[in-house]
Amino acid sequence: MPNVAIVGATGAVGQEFLKILAERNFPVDELRLLATKRSAGKKIAWQGRELEVQETTPDSFKNIDIALFAGGSSSTEFAKPAVESGAVVIDNSSAFRLDPEVPLVVPEVNPEDVKWHKGIIANPNCSTIIANVALKPIYDLAGIKRVVVSTYQAVSGAGREGIEELEAQARAKANGDEIISKVFPYQIAFNLIPRIDIFQEGDYTKEEWKMVKETRKIFHVPDMAVTATTVRVPVFRSHSESINIETERKVTVAEVKEALGKAPGVIVVDNPAKDQYPMPLYTSDTDEVYVGRIREDFSIEKGLNIWVVGDQIRKGAATNAVQIAELLLK
Amino acid sequence: MPNVAIVGATGAVGQEFLKILAERNFPVDELRLLATKRSAGKKIAWQGRELEVQETTPDSFKNIDIALFAGGSSSTEFAKPAVESGAVVIDNSSAFRLDPEVPLVVPEVNPEDVKWHKGIIANPNCSTIIANVALKPIYDLAGIKRVVVSTYQAVSGAGREGIEELEAQARAKANGDEIISKVFPYQIAFNLIPRIDIFQEGDYTKEEWKMVKETRKIFHVPDMAVTATTVRVPVFRSHSESINIETERKVTVAEVKEALGKAPGVIVVDNPAKDQYPMPLYTSDTDEVYVGRIREDFSIEKGLNIWVVGDQIRKGAATNAVQIAELLLK
Repeated sequence: MPNVAIVGATGAVGQEFLKILAERNFPVDELRLLATKRSAGKKIAWQGRELEVQETTPDSFKNIDIALFAGGSSSTEFAKPAVESGAVVIDNSSAFRLDPEVPLVVPEVNPEDVKWHKGIIANPNCSTIIANVALKPIYDLAGIKRVVVSTYQAVSGAGREGIEELEAQARAKANGDEIISKVFPYQIAFNLIPRIDIFQEGDYTKEEWKMVKETRKIFHVPDMAVTATTVRVPVFRSHSESINIETERKVTVAEVKEALGKAPGVIVVDNPAKDQYPMPLYTSDTDEVYVGRIREDFSIEKGLNIWVVGDQIRKGAATNAVQIAELLLK
Repeated sequence: MPNVAIVGATGAVGQEFLKILAERNFPVDELRLLATKRSAGKKIAWQGRELEVQETTPDSFKNIDIALFAGGSSSTEFAKPAVESGAVVIDNSSAFRLDPEVPLVVPEVNPEDVKWHKGIIANPNCSTIIANVALKPIYDLAGIKRVVVSTYQAVSGAGREGIEELEAQARAKANGDEIISKVFPYQIAFNLIPRIDIFQEGDYTKEEWKMVKETRKIFHVPDMAVTATTVRVPVFRSHSESINIETERKVTVAEVKEALGKAPGVIVVDNPAKDQYPMPLYTSDTDEVYVGRIREDFSIEKGLNIWVVGDQIRKGAATNAVQIAELLLK
């Protein structure tokens, strides 16, 4: 059984790694929990074991087979030392995703890319993963000419602190107290912030470019036409996306629903007569990507509109990384 | 000076009518407040007058010149009696919007349509008004081939009860109490509901069809390619919209910003260096439509992405109707 390290074990994604490894009965000999100095010494119970969090250093990875990096700056600092120690790194940060030497993998879309890794496998951006799981069956069915996506992203994308800030702001509003914003640049409770990550080329945010560039890499279509507008919403942990798709081939909504219904990792929730469609509140803490509001887009010859929801911490981060680890073990 | 009636005077839009008539110094001789029987007898102070709410009946419109209908079922019941009494009805419901005998007017877009009314002028859907004010300068500049819109709509779209439900649910969450949903089909606090109004043809909602069909009518382009996905978000009173536009003519972002900057009713808020973009929390209780995140869409030859925010109760409803009334007086 492999020895596994979790880097960033005390954060929102790190804690989810622990849950998901247990739920999926991932075979683990030693489980080593790593975090910043501040969290070192903290005790965490897991599967009948008591584990003590250690500070991450370049020497933390001896005898580790798989290192799950939860994200953030620790990847830039420790991914290479981990690889040099002989571990395979599955990295949830954006540091290596567009590196041509690093596979970027969504197991439902491009599992074969795991094979050519050179020590690091990148876990895509959360919104990208969720969109791509829904796009794959449509791509296989009809080809994809163009994608226009608008996101509705949960505060968990900013980690545990993001969740706590929304809770605190909602409580302050209820109690008539002052609302304080530290994690987000403006109040997020009862508001929307149409800027995630930093601004880059063309006044797109880095989050928007991630969706464009990562999708192209995952699908192996370097010129796939994708555009995105990414927006933070006052929801705790599932991301939602309104996706408009122009397909290569004309398909019916019935064909699309059938393809999505058979696709791995996808649950179709689309029953207008029963008022059923995916919603972030009710899909949190699950591993699947939910697709509904599946409609023909009558404004073009070969168009579709879909509404996609998935748990940002699970399928958007931790679950996808553990699925990559499972592919490695095969 | 005209005699003015407000039908639905005690609701969210009705109350806003009172504020806006006062703010804009709209000339009013008699102001008659009408509502359901339940509200009759209620006293409302306005501009130094004390007004008593009366029950709306077919006979309520004697000597009334302009009747502002706040929306809902009262329009179907009382708009025609009002016209027969000699009033011009400005109607905020969806009852007459697509009637070819009724002009549908956004003063910044098609003010000339006021002229051919036959007693009723329809006020468009809130999301449609907000989108169309932003689209008009782009249409004039470059022509519009296709519009793909995803909305982020405030709870005020469901009236005063919608606002109260979000407040109550947020308070219940803060206090650990049970969360009760009456106005919306599911919990809206910390959630998104991708269904507004009833389901219709092609599994589009009526709200989505309103955006498509009303936009075509307002722009006098019966085959304009428009598609929409409309979503309720936990925000109190400004609607936001992510709009992707394919123009007829290639234009630069600078040209678009200049055109929007000069357009009536539009405020451009788009300064990435200063982290400035429109947000619903900070645009509530104002009359303008705010446009930001203006970008070239690199996925097609002539594409744009914009982010548009406007107060649903004001420009999305009451202000637009009062502006129509001002056009009538000219």
